[in-house]
Amino acid sequence: MPKLVECIPNFSEGRRAEVIREILAVIEGVEGVKLVDHSSDPSHNRTVVTFVGEPLAVKAAAFLAVQKAKQLINMEEHRGQHPRMGATDVVPFVPISGVTMEECVELARELGQEIGEKLEIPVYLYEAAATRPERKSLPNVRKGEFEGLRETIHLPERRPDFGPARVHPTAGATAVGARPPLIAYNINLSTSDVKVAKAIARAIRGSSGGYPSIKALGVMLEDRNVAQVTINVCNFREVPLYRVFETVKSEASRYGVTVTGSEIVGLVPMEALLDAAGFYLRLENFQSRQVLETRLAE
Amino acid sequence: MPKLVECIPNFSEGRRAEVIREILAVIEGVEGVKLVDHSSDPSHNRTVVTFVGEPLAVKAAAFLAVQKAKQLINMEEHRGQHPRMGATDVVPFVPISGVTMEECVELARELGQEIGEKLEIPVYLYEAAATRPERKSLPNVRKGEFEGLRETIHLPERRPDFGPARVHPTAGATAVGARPPLIAYNINLSTSDVKVAKAIARAIRGSSGGYPSIKALGVMLEDRNVAQVTINVCNFREVPLYRVFETVKSEASRYGVTVTGSEIVGLVPMEALLDAAGFYLRLENFQSRQVLETRLAE
Repeated sequence: MPKLVECIPNFSEGRRAEVIREILAVIEGVEGVKLVDHSSDPSHNRTVVTFVGEPLAVKAAAFLAVQKAKQLINMEEHRGQHPRMGATDVVPFVPISGVTMEECVELARELGQEIGEKLEIPVYLYEAAATRPERKSLPNVRKGEFEGLRETIHLPERRPDFGPARVHPTAGATAVGARPPLIAYNINLSTSDVKVAKAIARAIRGSSGGYPSIKALGVMLEDRNVAQVTINVCNFREVPLYRVFETVKSEASRYGVTVTGSEIVGLVPMEALLDAAGFYLRLENFQSRQVLETRLAE
Repeated sequence: MPKLVECIPNFSEGRRAEVIREILAVIEGVEGVKLVDHSSDPSHNRTVVTFVGEPLAVKAAAFLAVQKAKQLINMEEHRGQHPRMGATDVVPFVPISGVTMEECVELARELGQEIGEKLEIPVYLYEAAATRPERKSLPNVRKGEFEGLRETIHLPERRPDFGPARVHPTAGATAVGARPPLIAYNINLSTSDVKVAKAIARAIRGSSGGYPSIKALGVMLEDRNVAQVTINVCNFREVPLYRVFETVKSEASRYGVTVTGSEIVGLVPMEALLDAAGFYLRLENFQSRQVLETRLAE
């Protein structure tokens, strides 16, 4: 099995195509790294890039991208709807195959140190790489955003893990971390009553007593006149897709509502879907090596 | 998407390890071909080999393997429980990705002609490559086996598609064809009454009026004291795994019996399991390109 790490940096630029192009170019220029996805949101003024490869190649590409973003993005001038604190706002490493979470935490530490020392950008380690419990949560780390952090970074509790204890004047600060793969998963209901979707979201999400690794909101799809539970499955090995689906189905039945469909947004690890097939088909002794495509990739 | 064809030749040797090794070696020696599986059954005295690659490389490897089997296997001396008619008994080509069934039929014709002309082994085209309706079915083609075919091959209805109209004295005859991927799938029941498994098998299989692409038998797993429906899913795009599972579950309920589990034997195309996940999760607009591993293989 090849050692593969995924990296999904978020950059505070979603409008100037030439800036985005230059950042993508330095990532693609690193041998052993494959750019698998990128999407820019002009109203968020933010670009999310996904690339995968061997751990050291991925770390090298991440550093070059952070360096390039520092050159091209000025946070003094950045406006957008999404919370952010730096030109490179956040850099998570995700173990995909043949790599442990601990190895991704180590990658995060090494990249954080390099960014802090060479680029003089303060770095906060977050999620599995966090050095303090309250920094596991990205919203905590990003509190106050670029503008607010400049006032509070001198406080002991806001001291960065690497780099200077002052916000870089143009590049801001960056969060670097390690986490399991995140799956963006939406479930549509047979109702136009958004209150049902909101109640179901409350039942399943960690912030109101549900599954700790689940984030969820009830929203209205105006164009389809359909209520939807929009979900982040943040650790599919802990709470798999099928359990989320079955819990939503069960909660919906309380209101006489059925699940009409579900949707995976963006990329999903094959394992998450094999898990669902295995659950429903009650598969015994199944190994992912039995998948022809997996065998071919070996 | 790379053009990939799978080839699963069956050789009439399951005991002499050195013969099997020599056949595998010529296959592995072809650049662009990957040996993904092989298993030998001493009581069947038969070896099933699975390899995958670009169409022309796969055809070249198949020819070399048939040539090697002709040199090393003498059908005059072959005994085993499995029906067989040649040193290389059967060579199916299976489209995996970027390749149509028609291209696999063409590969079968080309290989058949080469085997007939260069090795002087009579070749019958079967399944999707068959030139007569009655030759679609492999048991029809293999009727009489090696010994019987020597007496009947001169009849017009037994005339081979390629090669001489006489059985090769040591290498016999070979069937070459094209077919969809076959999935070996077993479903276990909450009963030790094999009659229930047999009744369910009758309900789903094509030979007794069920799904034409399904073969099934009811058997007893003596070691677990469990009745099992053992199934060949011969065209999972026509009748998917989840439909087989749901039909067996529904038929079992007639007897107050439940499905305790199911099992995939050997390799399975990823698509067959994604289909099951998509069915049960009611996925909308899902594309296999959303699977991270698929994106990486592009």
